[in-house]
Amino acid sequence: MPGIPPYDTNNIFSRILRGELPCHMVYEDEHSMAFMDLMPQSEGHTLVIPKAPSRNLLDADPTTFMWLMPAVQKIAKAVKRAFHADGIRVVQFNEPGAGQTVFHLHFHVIPVYEGVELKPHAGKPMDGGHLSQNAEKIREALKFIS
Amino acid sequence: MPGIPPYDTNNIFSRILRGELPCHMVYEDEHSMAFMDLMPQSEGHTLVIPKAPSRNLLDADPTTFMWLMPAVQKIAKAVKRAFHADGIRVVQFNEPGAGQTVFHLHFHVIPVYEGVELKPHAGKPMDGGHLSQNAEKIREALKFIS
Repeated sequence: MPGIPPYDTNNIFSRILRGELPCHMVYEDEHSMAFMDLMPQSEGHTLVIPKAPSRNLLDADPTTFMWLMPAVQKIAKAVKRAFHADGIRVVQFNEPGAGQTVFHLHFHVIPVYEGVELKPHAGKPMDGGHLSQNAEKIREALKFIS
Repeated sequence: MPGIPPYDTNNIFSRILRGELPCHMVYEDEHSMAFMDLMPQSEGHTLVIPKAPSRNLLDADPTTFMWLMPAVQKIAKAVKRAFHADGIRVVQFNEPGAGQTVFHLHFHVIPVYEGVELKPHAGKPMDGGHLSQNAEKIREALKFIS
């Protein structure tokens, strides 16, 4: 799309996909991967990304969504189950003006709890041990999701 | 999914799909429809919905996304072009706890403008004439989107 810079293969999600950086993985299939957001807006905040490279939704090949969205759906169900969330927000940012900070297409799956305000996007990092436990809870919940 | 109430065929988007209620339409194909949000969070805020009934992402048939997401992508590109937006947020709410107010699956396509704060979700209605002009701008921009 005009005005959208090309994909940068050194973004951190691309490096996670290549195994150059670690992540708290919760799900992987042939086309998609899901892992914990390091700066969660709420308990259980997870990211779902396609393995196919695209900067965001604006330049993605439309076939990307065919594989990605069923994964987003699975993760949303598992996160809701794992954390007994009251609801789930699915959020996706395109370009810095909209708040995008990592330039590989990703969907945020953010559980919402009544009476608990969401923390800011890209705010404070959460302790790695805590994230690791949360990833385990979601992997466990995924066993019950068709 | 356990805990998700059944689809209610009297929700307002279902009534728009049946032609019982009007909307400021910007796009329609065999599987999807897009129209202006009546209480926009920013200039150009548009909703994209599937024609297939589902309450939200949690109970949707996974095939729904195969048709819906390319429509979301088209609308995101057209809205960015029509309003020279700095970025686009794509947001989708599941269940009242997460802010969902209409119980037919829908994706919000929200243009973001540098220095302009987004208005609250489901806030103040915008004047119908203004919405109608915005719909026309997006329909015009869609002619340039492949």
